Amino acid sequence: MDFDLTNGIVVLERTPRTLRAMLAGLPADWFDATEGPGTWSPYVVVGHLIHGERTDWIPRARIILDQGTNRRFTPFDRFAQLRESEGKSLGELLDEFARLREESLATLRGWKLTDARLALEGEHPELGAVSLRQLLATWVAHDLSHIAQMARVMAKQYRDAVGPWRTYLPIMDR
Amino acid sequence: MDFDLTNGIVVLERTPRTLRAMLAGLPADWFDATEGPGTWSPYVVVGHLIHGERTDWIPRARIILDQGTNRRFTPFDRFAQLRESEGKSLGELLDEFARLREESLATLRGWKLTDARLALEGEHPELGAVSLRQLLATWVAHDLSHIAQMARVMAKQYRDAVGPWRTYLPIMDR
Repeated sequence: MDFDLTNGIVVLERTPRTLRAMLAGLPADWFDATEGPGTWSPYVVVGHLIHGERTDWIPRARIILDQGTNRRFTPFDRFAQLRESEGKSLGELLDEFARLREESLATLRGWKLTDARLALEGEHPELGAVSLRQLLATWVAHDLSHIAQMARVMAKQYRDAVGPWRTYLPIMDR
Repeated sequence: MDFDLTNGIVVLERTPRTLRAMLAGLPADWFDATEGPGTWSPYVVVGHLIHGERTDWIPRARIILDQGTNRRFTPFDRFAQLRESEGKSLGELLDEFARLREESLATLRGWKLTDARLALEGEHPELGAVSLRQLLATWVAHDLSHIAQMARVMAKQYRDAVGPWRTYLPIMDR
């Protein structure tokens, strides 16, 4: 599927509601669960998505749209949420994410991007030249990838509890 | 994590809302998308979950709880939804699933299962002896596994659109 602004936004605007439906009100047994040391719980993932709203998607889109002399993105801090989520409840993080995503989408819609502007490029610190269209497609895929991750992390908590059914659940050993 | 009725139910009761948040109102480009021939779209998965409510989880739990002479489960038809969803809109399927899941959970709660009854066994046609506790844990994990699948199937539609970011998105090649 080619990236299309309308089809991309319909996914982006659903993510806060999806996270809320999946996670709000769950006991910590579920939202603090991980796949092992150094891996992320659903709680950590929500903090990561918040950090993305603040420093990644819209800020990088701005760098591209500005077309200044320096179009190199600031490297994304994949561990910022471990600091920034400190002391916050899951409910607070879900609210914060919903609010930030709404602002991000208001900004994105306000730009009324044309195909020509979607083709503008910036410089990723590791990947090199990337287009605005690719950045926005990645934003969508990144949301979906983390929804899949949270469901997988939770499913794995029952790896032993399912007994012989584990054979039918490849997600347990992914 | 050991299976625990309360912790299992908090996940099971969220699934209809999660599916609605992710899928309701999406264009068919997204909900009919697959990972290739013979693989399932989010639309097909919702039909599969409906069939599970009708013929798998609660019916099998009943067979176990009855402790009759024949405790062998009826094999689950993994393709029934291709027939049964015919002519139904995604919205209709989401409503149907929500209604059936609510009924299933009312039944489950009504049983007020003790540890002793959770340890009762039935016979899976392929896996052999399985306990009620394992069946219920599998129900939860099965929901989560299909949520992860739907997010993955959708993410993959942007496999090419994300350009060089594909390297950072292992979900694209899973």
